[in-house]
Amino acid sequence: MQETADVLVIGTGTAGFTLALACRKGGRQVAVVDDKPYGGTCGRNGCEPEKYLMQAAQVVHLTRQMSGQGITVPAAMDWPALIRSKSAFSNGVPERTERAFQQAGIKMYFGTAHFLSPETVAIGSETTVRAETIVIATGARPAPLDFPGAGLVVETSDFMEMKNLPRRVLFIGGGCLALSFGHVARAAGADVTILQRGERVLKNFDLEMAQLAAKAARARGINIVTGITAAMAEKVQGAFMTYGKGGCTEAFPSDLIVNTSGRIPDLDPVDPEAGAVARSARGVTVNEFLQSVSNPRVWAIGDACDSPYLLSTVADMEAEVAADNILTGNRRRPDYQGVPSMAQAQPPLSFVGLTEAQARQSGKKFRINRGSTDSWPSSRRIGQQGGFYKVLIEEETGKILGAHLLGQNAGETINIFALALKFGISNSELRQILWTYPTFISDVKDMIE
Amino acid sequence: MQETADVLVIGTGTAGFTLALACRKGGRQVAVVDDKPYGGTCGRNGCEPEKYLMQAAQVVHLTRQMSGQGITVPAAMDWPALIRSKSAFSNGVPERTERAFQQAGIKMYFGTAHFLSPETVAIGSETTVRAETIVIATGARPAPLDFPGAGLVVETSDFMEMKNLPRRVLFIGGGCLALSFGHVARAAGADVTILQRGERVLKNFDLEMAQLAAKAARARGINIVTGITAAMAEKVQGAFMTYGKGGCTEAFPSDLIVNTSGRIPDLDPVDPEAGAVARSARGVTVNEFLQSVSNPRVWAIGDACDSPYLLSTVADMEAEVAADNILTGNRRRPDYQGVPSMAQAQPPLSFVGLTEAQARQSGKKFRINRGSTDSWPSSRRIGQQGGFYKVLIEEETGKILGAHLLGQNAGETINIFALALKFGISNSELRQILWTYPTFISDVKDMIE
Repeated sequence: MQETADVLVIGTGTAGFTLALACRKGGRQVAVVDDKPYGGTCGRNGCEPEKYLMQAAQVVHLTRQMSGQGITVPAAMDWPALIRSKSAFSNGVPERTERAFQQAGIKMYFGTAHFLSPETVAIGSETTVRAETIVIATGARPAPLDFPGAGLVVETSDFMEMKNLPRRVLFIGGGCLALSFGHVARAAGADVTILQRGERVLKNFDLEMAQLAAKAARARGINIVTGITAAMAEKVQGAFMTYGKGGCTEAFPSDLIVNTSGRIPDLDPVDPEAGAVARSARGVTVNEFLQSVSNPRVWAIGDACDSPYLLSTVADMEAEVAADNILTGNRRRPDYQGVPSMAQAQPPLSFVGLTEAQARQSGKKFRINRGSTDSWPSSRRIGQQGGFYKVLIEEETGKILGAHLLGQNAGETINIFALALKFGISNSELRQILWTYPTFISDVKDMIE
Repeated sequence: MQETADVLVIGTGTAGFTLALACRKGGRQVAVVDDKPYGGTCGRNGCEPEKYLMQAAQVVHLTRQMSGQGITVPAAMDWPALIRSKSAFSNGVPERTERAFQQAGIKMYFGTAHFLSPETVAIGSETTVRAETIVIATGARPAPLDFPGAGLVVETSDFMEMKNLPRRVLFIGGGCLALSFGHVARAAGADVTILQRGERVLKNFDLEMAQLAAKAARARGINIVTGITAAMAEKVQGAFMTYGKGGCTEAFPSDLIVNTSGRIPDLDPVDPEAGAVARSARGVTVNEFLQSVSNPRVWAIGDACDSPYLLSTVADMEAEVAADNILTGNRRRPDYQGVPSMAQAQPPLSFVGLTEAQARQSGKKFRINRGSTDSWPSSRRIGQQGGFYKVLIEEETGKILGAHLLGQNAGETINIFALALKFGISNSELRQILWTYPTFISDVKDMIE
């Protein structure tokens, strides 16, 4: 069956969803297709359910660290109950997504889509769609592990569905996912080990801050091992043995191994080459308007395109930009300035702008406000030890070049600095704000003097 | 003993502290005096210890509302332990304050100060200080209650020192203090009643939002009674009976009565009239530079002066402004635009800018974005019901006129709107920010569409 569409969107996650609705609103005949349940990673088995688990874990960790401050019984977590309520939270995503498409008058296809030619996409074995515009919004998938026994490793989406939590959990890869799920497993009572190939965890974050976050995780009993590459895994008498350092040198016994080694664009099933769509290992190669450099009929947004961030907020922004350009011609460019990041650990770590190393490389003249927050009332109120801040301020202008926060509420507070970066608000201007007091955000005043 | 000073500061709370250090840094010979332990209300027995108690209470309330979401055992609070750790948190304030003054080379007096003449202040019975500049920073004290039996009522500072918490606690006055301490007492297991003279609680807040906050408090078992004035209190067989409605019509039995009826400037002991310092019921009458309108040698800052807010951040700002004017002549004016307020309830309520009623009075053309947040993931993650937002957006400019938030993190999130108000950032500009996701602050996007 040969069909047509003005705009065919491959992928129904937050990027594809936002773009499809915007193009439909703009009067185009829009079709969407997905080989998985509708709704994409973030809502179904990514950041939303991850945050759901982490929210419970953070409360448990918080009541533990407040023990002795009037909290006599810390909160306790039950894994099966947590997973059940998480499922109730996220299971409705496909249905809600389909309903929104239906109400908007968007045609829905279910199945695997792959290019047949630069202007035609096959869906399954029986349908082909010829579209004026084809948008690749297929997101990312876990980076595959390639050592012997890698088949024993589960993905984070499996982890979030486990009916029971094994006693010893090993995470391979030391990025945000490992820290987040590691803290969840730890709050639920598991022994947690994070095995990180490189010398440091959280490699996109400022080095000093990442080390402090690792220290905070260790203080909660999470075992972080760096500089060791997982080289082999096997099952020995019911348990898993993972070996590091090029063979069987060092053994890490566990009852569950989880892949947290990162994510890569999920492009192979689309067969971009058949559509003359150029790509790199980081995604579809696009111009400054998010249009494929090799096939002007094709756009790529979200985790599937080669842009600087794998974040759902960035995916939404790219979707809005691409939709505008599709509807009215190439005019809008995505703006990646001042995008804040956070690692959902306990306490969370967040940053926006430049790391210290990047700032030094930039040649800009800046000073660093930095220090422990342990003596601050906001930390003492919650029994927090190991909090830290680091703010890079340009000497001449007072502009915030970068801000790095480790502490309760850091993932929220960083947005103040994101605003300051985006609108060029200097430290002296920021000091004019009379923040609500006493709050975590009121600490900003002491970070920017 | 007759002594002299360039600047004599009466009161050592955050306002007096900030001003004294700034003037000392500016080269003046500075003296300070206080009739209470150094450090003022906020640090010693005001917002800092209040927040300390409320932080623990919020965690307890949070784990209760998350029960059934993987949290199987909510956190429990022990009152005596809470008060002990609160004391450890705040008891060091006088010593730290004195040390800071000493290190700065500021002369310290201890005792009651009162004006002898427009340029002379007596300290106790033996010392007089003649000063070029005299700064009144005496803060506020609880508004006295004047019904028969008012002597049975304790102040919030006493409440925060109670070794044991009685079973039934009655708060007289339905402002921020009642909501905050009411939730603390409730978290610790007490039966709580709030008796409010007017028809509504939280009278400085938007009416609709205040009613929703009252509803949320009631959902946690706090009994809020409005439209009844406490008219008499007595002790009957070990319990307290408070009667409302002009006599003995309605009785409220309790084991403890706390005055949360508000605060008034603490000026009587200073005898402003002897110093030719004009005042109203709201504090020392000052010009736009915070200088007394009747005695140019005198300045007034913080809760003791007749300015629009009783907030420690405002006190600090006024101290900085007054210090600049004292040191370099009248040039700086305090800026009260965009000062956010919060009520530390569960969930907290916060606002900045205009209430709906004020916006209507202003004659500006605006639209209101408002609604429940119950279906939002940020609420569902923490089992929150009853969250609400209301944002007033000017039609023509997209400027934020006012923002009102009821929900977990509201006291933090409101600062985003405070920034937008202060720097005139419009809703469409604010929408460019790619907030950390998923967070409470990322909800801002959905509030400003």
